Amino acid sequence: MVLLARARALPAIGGRRLSTAASSPDGAIGFIGLGQMGHHMAKHLQSKSDAPFIVYDKSAEAVARFRAAAGRQVEAAGSPAELASRASVIVTVLPESAHVREAYTGSGGILEGIRRGALCIDSSTIDTSVSIDVSQQVIAAGAQAVDAPISGGIMGAQAATLTFMVGSQSAGDFERASAHLAKMGKNVVRCGGLGAGQAAKICNNMLLAISMIGTAEAMNLGMRLGLDPAVLASIINTSSGRCWASDTANPVPGVIPAAPSSKGYSGGFKARLMAKDLGLVASAAKDSRTPLLLGALADNIYRHVAQDPGMADQDFGVVYQWLAGGTAKRG
Amino acid sequence: MVLLARARALPAIGGRRLSTAASSPDGAIGFIGLGQMGHHMAKHLQSKSDAPFIVYDKSAEAVARFRAAAGRQVEAAGSPAELASRASVIVTVLPESAHVREAYTGSGGILEGIRRGALCIDSSTIDTSVSIDVSQQVIAAGAQAVDAPISGGIMGAQAATLTFMVGSQSAGDFERASAHLAKMGKNVVRCGGLGAGQAAKICNNMLLAISMIGTAEAMNLGMRLGLDPAVLASIINTSSGRCWASDTANPVPGVIPAAPSSKGYSGGFKARLMAKDLGLVASAAKDSRTPLLLGALADNIYRHVAQDPGMADQDFGVVYQWLAGGTAKRG
Amino acid sequence: MVLLARARALPAIGGRRLSTAASSPDGAIGFIGLGQMGHHMAKHLQSKSDAPFIVYDKSAEAVARFRAAAGRQVEAAGSPAELASRASVIVTVLPESAHVREAYTGSGGILEGIRRGALCIDSSTIDTSVSIDVSQQVIAAGAQAVDAPISGGIMGAQAATLTFMVGSQSAGDFERASAHLAKMGKNVVRCGGLGAGQAAKICNNMLLAISMIGTAEAMNLGMRLGLDPAVLASIINTSSGRCWASDTANPVPGVIPAAPSSKGYSGGFKARLMAKDLGLVASAAKDSRTPLLLGALADNIYRHVAQDPGMADQDFGVVYQWLAGGTAKRG
Amino acid sequence: MVLLARARALPAIGGRRLSTAASSPDGAIGFIGLGQMGHHMAKHLQSKSDAPFIVYDKSAEAVARFRAAAGRQVEAAGSPAELASRASVIVTVLPESAHVREAYTGSGGILEGIRRGALCIDSSTIDTSVSIDVSQQVIAAGAQAVDAPISGGIMGAQAATLTFMVGSQSAGDFERASAHLAKMGKNVVRCGGLGAGQAAKICNNMLLAISMIGTAEAMNLGMRLGLDPAVLASIINTSSGRCWASDTANPVPGVIPAAPSSKGYSGGFKARLMAKDLGLVASAAKDSRTPLLLGALADNIYRHVAQDPGMADQDFGVVYQWLAGGTAKRG
Repeated sequence: MVLLARARALPAIGGRRLSTAASSPDGAIGFIGLGQMGHHMAKHLQSKSDAPFIVYDKSAEAVARFRAAAGRQVEAAGSPAELASRASVIVTVLPESAHVREAYTGSGGILEGIRRGALCIDSSTIDTSVSIDVSQQVIAAGAQAVDAPISGGIMGAQAATLTFMVGSQSAGDFERASAHLAKMGKNVVRCGGLGAGQAAKICNNMLLAISMIGTAEAMNLGMRLGLDPAVLASIINTSSGRCWASDTANPVPGVIPAAPSSKGYSGGFKARLMAKDLGLVASAAKDSRTPLLLGALADNIYRHVAQDPGMADQDFGVVYQWLAGGTAKRG
Repeated sequence: MVLLARARALPAIGGRRLSTAASSPDGAIGFIGLGQMGHHMAKHLQSKSDAPFIVYDKSAEAVARFRAAAGRQVEAAGSPAELASRASVIVTVLPESAHVREAYTGSGGILEGIRRGALCIDSSTIDTSVSIDVSQQVIAAGAQAVDAPISGGIMGAQAATLTFMVGSQSAGDFERASAHLAKMGKNVVRCGGLGAGQAAKICNNMLLAISMIGTAEAMNLGMRLGLDPAVLASIINTSSGRCWASDTANPVPGVIPAAPSSKGYSGGFKARLMAKDLGLVASAAKDSRTPLLLGALADNIYRHVAQDPGMADQDFGVVYQWLAGGTAKRG
Repeated sequence: MVLLARARALPAIGGRRLSTAASSPDGAIGFIGLGQMGHHMAKHLQSKSDAPFIVYDKSAEAVARFRAAAGRQVEAAGSPAELASRASVIVTVLPESAHVREAYTGSGGILEGIRRGALCIDSSTIDTSVSIDVSQQVIAAGAQAVDAPISGGIMGAQAATLTFMVGSQSAGDFERASAHLAKMGKNVVRCGGLGAGQAAKICNNMLLAISMIGTAEAMNLGMRLGLDPAVLASIINTSSGRCWASDTANPVPGVIPAAPSSKGYSGGFKARLMAKDLGLVASAAKDSRTPLLLGALADNIYRHVAQDPGMADQDFGVVYQWLAGGTAKRG
Repeated sequence: MVLLARARALPAIGGRRLSTAASSPDGAIGFIGLGQMGHHMAKHLQSKSDAPFIVYDKSAEAVARFRAAAGRQVEAAGSPAELASRASVIVTVLPESAHVREAYTGSGGILEGIRRGALCIDSSTIDTSVSIDVSQQVIAAGAQAVDAPISGGIMGAQAATLTFMVGSQSAGDFERASAHLAKMGKNVVRCGGLGAGQAAKICNNMLLAISMIGTAEAMNLGMRLGLDPAVLASIINTSSGRCWASDTANPVPGVIPAAPSSKGYSGGFKARLMAKDLGLVASAAKDSRTPLLLGALADNIYRHVAQDPGMADQDFGVVYQWLAGGTAKRG
């Protein structure tokens, strides 16, 4: 895999860019995928754009719900191809590689209707190799493509505080995409060439999974040795063990009141979605022959946790309960 | 093991306590262990105390070096017992459990000379069970004991910015010890009852080891996928994967200029010392029947790294080179 | 993935089947892939068959070498399609999934020339999902397909003592393939429906990798505790720890004189090929959401070992040297 | 740790040695520890010996049960010391290191009563370092000591088919102990110097644990890929993946009718005892600085399994149920 070596970090998306967006030549905006994330993202994008807005989702109910929630007229397309034939910017937010491949290259897919010069922004988290392949097909069709997976969860989607990790062929493509992404989030970062957004996302999430299991192990060990969890967390959080999983999302109930663990492991990042992301890590590592010791174990631990029907849909901090021999309900 | 549940965090050691120290009834201070850490710690403690200062080290050279460096008269004892017979506060900073056991309970050890009411502060990082056992023997002899292992490294010892994690039988013992510890560091935290300092220290260090290996794996994977390491680190450091090992001690040379990795893995926390601390984790986990999946693997990875003569004495971030198939020299 | 549940083990391939083969309606035999394994296999198949024999390999040199070694006239085809157009039985022995996919479905591939009723036997070890997909395309073209990966190595190929693990749509397909496979090996086992041969092969090899690393760890630990390796091996081999990796291919040099470890780790199953097979395991496990703890670690350990240029092409028992901190050369 | 390098394997204990035993100068035999294993072992030893037989157990009930079951007069001692004062051979079969240390060196322990020239045979599985330390104290008291841990389980104890792995200072000590051990088992193997029996035992059991988890993973993966478990097991058992855990104690119910897994995981080696043995492995590895990757993970997996009250007392093959997401009850 060849990714562009050059990459540029944009720390904050300020007024200049929004004014660029205001003068943008981009016409109608198409949005495919109105699930939990997509619904909120599309609402922000639609409400902050003047352009016509067209949506598509396999679920008629999701489309109806979005049209009811939208502040103004929203058109619904009968297929990705139809949507693509009318839009100059297309955003896709879909669950897995297969859905992205189908939406772009399947029968009735985007490639059947795409207009020359259109921009496709895929904010799904999928296989890096699939992402690059689909983007290259879009480019071969005379359009532009960037991968822009998301960090920040449902709360970030609601509050438009998401971070987008972007891979693009050129700085110009990135600028063009940023104008739209800035309406749905607060950080838009260029990570490199095509696929670089996906690569950065999965590297971060692997480290997140490792940190979370590590925090769960450290807290569990300390508590079995007699330490008070709040005291232990306060020490770790001001020492060299500190990490987001400990100081913001500590998996022991009660240590951080705002963390999902303190709310019955609800409202966070689901264990089965972490397992899915780690599957992408495993594929990327296999293809690039990169040894991962803790990463591979973390992958398989979450695969094991996600087998438990009571834990799969809880926040991924529930690994603490798995480890401590408890159940999600005791959380 | 029963540790005191109650614990109190003291964010900063202010003037009140120093004045307490000034009016302290504590007489002569004894210091055992003038190695890399102990030398600097003893210098700070001696220079900020008015009491007579007595030292002991198995190495006559270490004693001579300290006496030469000390600003005023320092007495040298012929044995820990002799030192104990003349001191009302004793600080020990020794490499491993066996050394602590010998210094306290061996022939010519502290217990043979200890005075009633004396305070023993052990700042070694050792087996929690050995620490508790030795402390209880001190207490049985009519004296007081606290465990106070250190975080902060040689630079922290030089600058008197260490953190002390303290386990003590009572809040009073903690207050008495704090008066002295505050002269050698800037954070003194009560973690719980006897042994709690040791427990907190090893829990933190286990999470640190896991974070460091996880960061090395994430950076290595990202780089093999074509990402620029500085860009990847900047994304992780502002996302949910952030941790001390990534944002302060990133193991990829050049990412953080001040990190040991950027100086040939010198000046940091040696891989073989991390391996030693993880051995303490393994014992504590075994004794408390606590499952550690990533922790056990981290332990054995560092045991493997520490087998390599070229890596054992380098900063523990060198695990990145081990993983990437490089050598320390290529770092 | 749906595999046929019904499966039949054929302990030995006896005279009846060979006579079936003698009266077989199968005409010309095509053989694609004359590498280290294929060369020997093709020689046995050719010398024991009366039918015309056609070969194809991308390497003209490999074709020439085989024709020189063959006992009688052998035709060379210019492409897999040409070969397929003239053969009623086709055997493929190729390195990786991509090669199999290309040989069957690529331009000039088997599917372009295949005859109705022909039988394709793929003895490559590849992704189960690719294997099933290619077989189904063959079947859709009006021919038959079985997967028949091999166990037994180069020595087994030379001596015609290989084991074939076969997946087939029907018992009849299996019988037809067995007539030919029996000329190249001594065990032909039906494992289930399409893809079942691949599945069985990778499950066995995963357990083999785990056993080998486990044996290396147990021997290394015992030796560090002072045990004589020959004594330890003899105890394990008559106790509950016994396994092929210990009693036949013990990785400690000198313990089993005939093992590759006693010959400088030469003549065995290369570490990089084990790493490749474990990559197939990782994919199958990911796709079926099966947690593998030791299996995932074994995969990544071999990925790490295969990074070392000095170890990649040595017998996979070299993991003992990796673990013990030695190098292949010391073996 | 220094173990004797020289070691001798005795493949079978034949008539010569038994006749040696018959002419042995050894007088009264003492037996300490009449638990599940000890009860059966003591019965065989007593019934095949002419010498007076003295027993001790903390549990009066265990003593009474044994005396009722014994064929002839058995004396009960009030303490290990009393037993030792009357016996020339002492066999101990105790659960953990602490019990052995107490029985030998505690108040009222063997060392308080031991006779010069007596022989102590410890068949407990304990820490190698504790074993060597206790043996050396016995030897310092003018007696002899061997470590002789057992393989073979309760069924082996009942049938007198156990294997003894013996560590001894000299070949003569081994010969003397063999005369007695041969009455309780069928294989008596000298592994090396003091502690070598313990070392060999834990190395074997670590490899056994790794093989069992590996078999569970391979079977689980194969079944999820659609393979019939009996077919998969038959392939593995005739291929390079074969091991005792697969061909004799396969953890999938129904594959091996005589295996514990086919009887609800009853009648085998309990998961919590495997966890205990792996704890000994962890200590030995830590003390000898030996890296164990799969071994450390196996240790912690069994620690996790043993936390589950429903699995702790089942055969250690129950790890298959843990892995597959089932419960012991579904077994």
